[in-house]
Amino acid sequence: MAEHVLVPWQITDGDGGWPTTLRVDVWDGQGTPPDVSDISFYVLPYAVPSARGLITAMPRLRVVQALTAGYEQIIPLLRPGVTLCNGRGLHDASTAEHALGLILAAQRDLPRWVDDQREHRWEPHYTRSLADSRVLILGYGSIGTALERRLLACEASVVRVARSARPEARVHGVSELPALLPHVDIVVLVLPDNESTERLFDATAMAALPDGALVVNVGRGRTLDTDALAAETGRGRLRAALDVTDPEPLPAENPLWSHPGVLITPHVAGGSATFYPRARRLVGDQLHRFVTGAPLRNVVREG
Amino acid sequence: MAEHVLVPWQITDGDGGWPTTLRVDVWDGQGTPPDVSDISFYVLPYAVPSARGLITAMPRLRVVQALTAGYEQIIPLLRPGVTLCNGRGLHDASTAEHALGLILAAQRDLPRWVDDQREHRWEPHYTRSLADSRVLILGYGSIGTALERRLLACEASVVRVARSARPEARVHGVSELPALLPHVDIVVLVLPDNESTERLFDATAMAALPDGALVVNVGRGRTLDTDALAAETGRGRLRAALDVTDPEPLPAENPLWSHPGVLITPHVAGGSATFYPRARRLVGDQLHRFVTGAPLRNVVREG
Repeated sequence: MAEHVLVPWQITDGDGGWPTTLRVDVWDGQGTPPDVSDISFYVLPYAVPSARGLITAMPRLRVVQALTAGYEQIIPLLRPGVTLCNGRGLHDASTAEHALGLILAAQRDLPRWVDDQREHRWEPHYTRSLADSRVLILGYGSIGTALERRLLACEASVVRVARSARPEARVHGVSELPALLPHVDIVVLVLPDNESTERLFDATAMAALPDGALVVNVGRGRTLDTDALAAETGRGRLRAALDVTDPEPLPAENPLWSHPGVLITPHVAGGSATFYPRARRLVGDQLHRFVTGAPLRNVVREG
Repeated sequence: MAEHVLVPWQITDGDGGWPTTLRVDVWDGQGTPPDVSDISFYVLPYAVPSARGLITAMPRLRVVQALTAGYEQIIPLLRPGVTLCNGRGLHDASTAEHALGLILAAQRDLPRWVDDQREHRWEPHYTRSLADSRVLILGYGSIGTALERRLLACEASVVRVARSARPEARVHGVSELPALLPHVDIVVLVLPDNESTERLFDATAMAALPDGALVVNVGRGRTLDTDALAAETGRGRLRAALDVTDPEPLPAENPLWSHPGVLITPHVAGGSATFYPRARRLVGDQLHRFVTGAPLRNVVREG
C-alpha cells in the first residue's frame, strides 16, 4: 500500500520531482483535518502551533518534518520510533535580510521619514550610516553567517561571538563580551532560546555599550532583558530594533512601543517570500529520501 | 606668502596630515563669511547652494573643490584659470546604502510596521523579500557598482543598464529597456540629470514593468515622469521608494505622499555619517597636492 503523507500545501513536480507513488493529503492547519489514521509522514504547517496536536492522533507516524529551526515543543509529543527533522536553514536568508533591514532603518532614520511622510513633510537631516560601523553578532551560526556576508558588503566590520570561542575561525566566546561591547556600534542577537541564553543580554551587558549604540534582536525575545532595555531606551542612551520580544506579542502598555529610537516588528523576520521556495524544495527532497530509504536531512531526533 | 584656503570645517592632522604651511579659514556656509580677497583654494560647504555665490568674490581663486558629484551649476561662476574638482565617489557608499535601505523597507513592509508601532499593534503578516528578486540598475556607474555588491550579498540578481551597452561587462544599453523591464521585480534609477536622461523613465517604461514591481529613485528627480508614476501607484499597480522627486521638495499636495506602497525620503541618500570622513580625507589629500604642485584628483574643469 502507498505511504500516506500529510503536507501543508499542494505539491507538484515543480517541487523537485516528488515521488508519485505517495498518497498525499493537504492540510494547512486551518479547519478540520483529514483522516490521519494511517499517515506515516507529517509536514507540520508553518506558524500554526496548534497543528502539532495532530501528531498524537497518528498511530502509524514515522517522520515529522518541522519547518522551523526550533523544535523543543515537538519532542514531548513523539512516540518512540518517530523521527523528527527540523527546518534548519530555511529561514536564514529571510532572517538575515530582515536584520539588515532593521539595522538600515535604524541607522538611516527610516521611521522618522515614514512619520514625516504621513504629514507630507520634507525635512532632510544628516543621519548615521551602516558603512564604517562595527557590528557584533551574538550567536554566530548559520543566520549570523548570512548576516555577516550582507554587512561586509555594506562596508561594516563584524565581530563574531558564540557560546564557545573558536580562535581559528575568529569567533569570540560569550565570556569576552564585557571586553568587546564598549567598542561596537551595533549588537545583533541571533540566539536560540534555552537555559544558557535566557536573559544573556542583561543590564550589565547593555551598560557596557557606548552611548547611542543599537541593540537588534532577531533571535528569541527571552534572550534579552526587556525591562533593562526599556530603562536604557527610556532615557535615550541606547537605541533598539526588535523583531522578537518578551513576552510576545508585546503588550500594548509596554513602554518600548513609544520610546524614541525603538523600532518594533511583530516576529516577521523568518516569514518572507524567500521561505516557501526553500521549504518546498526541502519537503520534496525529504519525501524522495523517505520513499527510497535514503537518509533524511536535518534529523534532530532519531526514531 | 602662505596660500590662503577656505574650508567648511576645522581641519586637523587627523585628516591625513594637511599642510601646515597653509593659512586656513573656516566657513560652513552659514552667517557672514570671512575676508576672501586672497583665497586661492575654496572648498564649498556641503548642501549650502548659496555658498557658491562667494566664488565670484575671490579674485585670487585658483581651485574650487565641490563635495558633490554634480557641478553643472558651478561652471558658470568660474573665471578662466580656475580649476574645478568634484566630489565623485564621496557619496557612493552612503547612496548605495540608502537605496538598499529603501528596497528592504519596501520589500519587508517596514512603513507598515512603523504605522502599527504608533498604534501599539502586533499583527504579523507574510512579506515580500529581496532575496531571489531580480533588480535592474538603471545608470550603472560607481554608485550602481556599490549597490550591486550589496544586492548580490542579499541573494538578489542584478541586471546592469547604462547609456551605452558594454556586452563584455554584461552592461545593457538603454535601448534594451523595453525587453528587460517585463522580467524584473525592482528598478533602481541612479541617473545623472542632463538632457538625455530627462524623464527617461516614462509612462511607457513603467507600463512594461510587471504588476507589483518596485520603482526606486536615488539619482535625480527629473529622470522619472512623476505624474506617470503617480498614475501607476494611485491604482496600486506599481510600488515606489523615492529619495529624489520632481519638483523638490515634493509639494505637500502631491498625491504620491499618500499612495499606498509609496515610501518617500527627503533627498538624504548621500548625507550620512559615511560622508564626512571620506570628504575630509579627500580635502586633506587635495590640499597636500595643491601645496606640492601634484596633480589634483577629480578635476572636472581644467583651470
